[in-house]
Amino acid sequence: MKTIANFRIVLVEPLYSGNVGSVCRAMANMGVQELFLVRPQIVDGWEEGERLACHAREQLQGRREVATLEEAVADCVAVAGTTARLGLYRQHVRTPRESAPELVKLAGDGRVALVFGREDKGLFNEEIGICTHLIRVPTASEYVSLNLAQAVMICCYEMFLARGSYEPPQEKSDLAPAGHRIQMLKLWRQLLLDIGFMKADKANHMMQGVGRVFSRGAVTRDDVDILMGMARQADWAARQGRNGGGRQEAGRS
Amino acid sequence: MKTIANFRIVLVEPLYSGNVGSVCRAMANMGVQELFLVRPQIVDGWEEGERLACHAREQLQGRREVATLEEAVADCVAVAGTTARLGLYRQHVRTPRESAPELVKLAGDGRVALVFGREDKGLFNEEIGICTHLIRVPTASEYVSLNLAQAVMICCYEMFLARGSYEPPQEKSDLAPAGHRIQMLKLWRQLLLDIGFMKADKANHMMQGVGRVFSRGAVTRDDVDILMGMARQADWAARQGRNGGGRQEAGRS
Repeated sequence: MKTIANFRIVLVEPLYSGNVGSVCRAMANMGVQELFLVRPQIVDGWEEGERLACHAREQLQGRREVATLEEAVADCVAVAGTTARLGLYRQHVRTPRESAPELVKLAGDGRVALVFGREDKGLFNEEIGICTHLIRVPTASEYVSLNLAQAVMICCYEMFLARGSYEPPQEKSDLAPAGHRIQMLKLWRQLLLDIGFMKADKANHMMQGVGRVFSRGAVTRDDVDILMGMARQADWAARQGRNGGGRQEAGRS
Repeated sequence: MKTIANFRIVLVEPLYSGNVGSVCRAMANMGVQELFLVRPQIVDGWEEGERLACHAREQLQGRREVATLEEAVADCVAVAGTTARLGLYRQHVRTPRESAPELVKLAGDGRVALVFGREDKGLFNEEIGICTHLIRVPTASEYVSLNLAQAVMICCYEMFLARGSYEPPQEKSDLAPAGHRIQMLKLWRQLLLDIGFMKADKANHMMQGVGRVFSRGAVTRDDVDILMGMARQADWAARQGRNGGGRQEAGRS
């Protein structure tokens, strides 16, 4: 059960306390403990939430409310976002069942966040950009949008079932916490804007693609340091003058 | 999608319309159409149900309300009941994932009912006795009771995912509808009472065991006819006098 306890449910701007309560019950059913709410927008008080949480009081009362998704996932070694939509930068989504073995394995090394968007609008592109993994629950084509708590249940259920198949590795790699990775992506974002690789109004969209490329496989602290070094170096080179071929000649900073 | 459309959700004495609405949405997400309610005890009107069904109006408005579980499953070739409890006659329960390939295969031959009990008390023993299969959703040991709609979702989700693995058989066996099988079990129940095999107050309990033995594997019309013939024959033999060894000497009636 150790690996299951390392999963964290993150709800971004949830609207209805009943959904949060149902999420808590689903978590408790599958042995998941930690609940983070990012800017909760609860419109109906907490009575319904407490009723639907039922015996999952520990999850509901232990919830943490934070102002940003970054805060909610900063200490996580993997951040799996859920989406019902497809798009250019959402093509690498996998099903919960496909994702589960890898996420459970990562949960052996640290916290893994499962991130769920608003009831009505899901996750925005800049939030998707923070995710290292994307998950979409397979559905009938006629009705693809799941209730929030149902989506949480299916994801927790798949992690719960997959946990048995996890064998802890003999040698541990030191995975980068999400906060470290987000700093790295911010560096790259600024660089790519500075060098004119992308325009400001396309930045959120482009950074999803960059984030995806940088998130393939597990990302260690060393990996992130290298990517940060690359960004700083590229920035330095760019400042030397784009036209002088400075980028290739510049040494490591 | 054909096999998924052959699944039917049966809710026995549901209490809250919100749960029924959430069940409808889960069904629509997974492509399941038919909803039967057995003696619904809705305490809160249908407003919440309609709100939570969301775009699953077809399922909600098309629901059928019947007086008995028998009516709800009479035309079904398999009846899978769900239970959170363990017990002497509930030991052959399987997980939704274990059950799915066989149930999807059966759904290629006719309707398959997935039966869910009351929010507070689940299915009673006599209802379990009507089931050909028993399912329990695996959970953390600390909190084994799922919300009704969550249980429906997980079962529908597993059937939905398993449908792809189904190859229709070349030769079809004519499976017995549940109504036929229930009549057979009633005959046996009466016989076993008459011959003093069991006492009336233990009958529901015993018949779960008998039903289980008689439900192993697929049951065809011929199988049921044979079992009915056996009961009638045993009854005849018993009437000839228990003490005269009549049972073994009696010919087929």
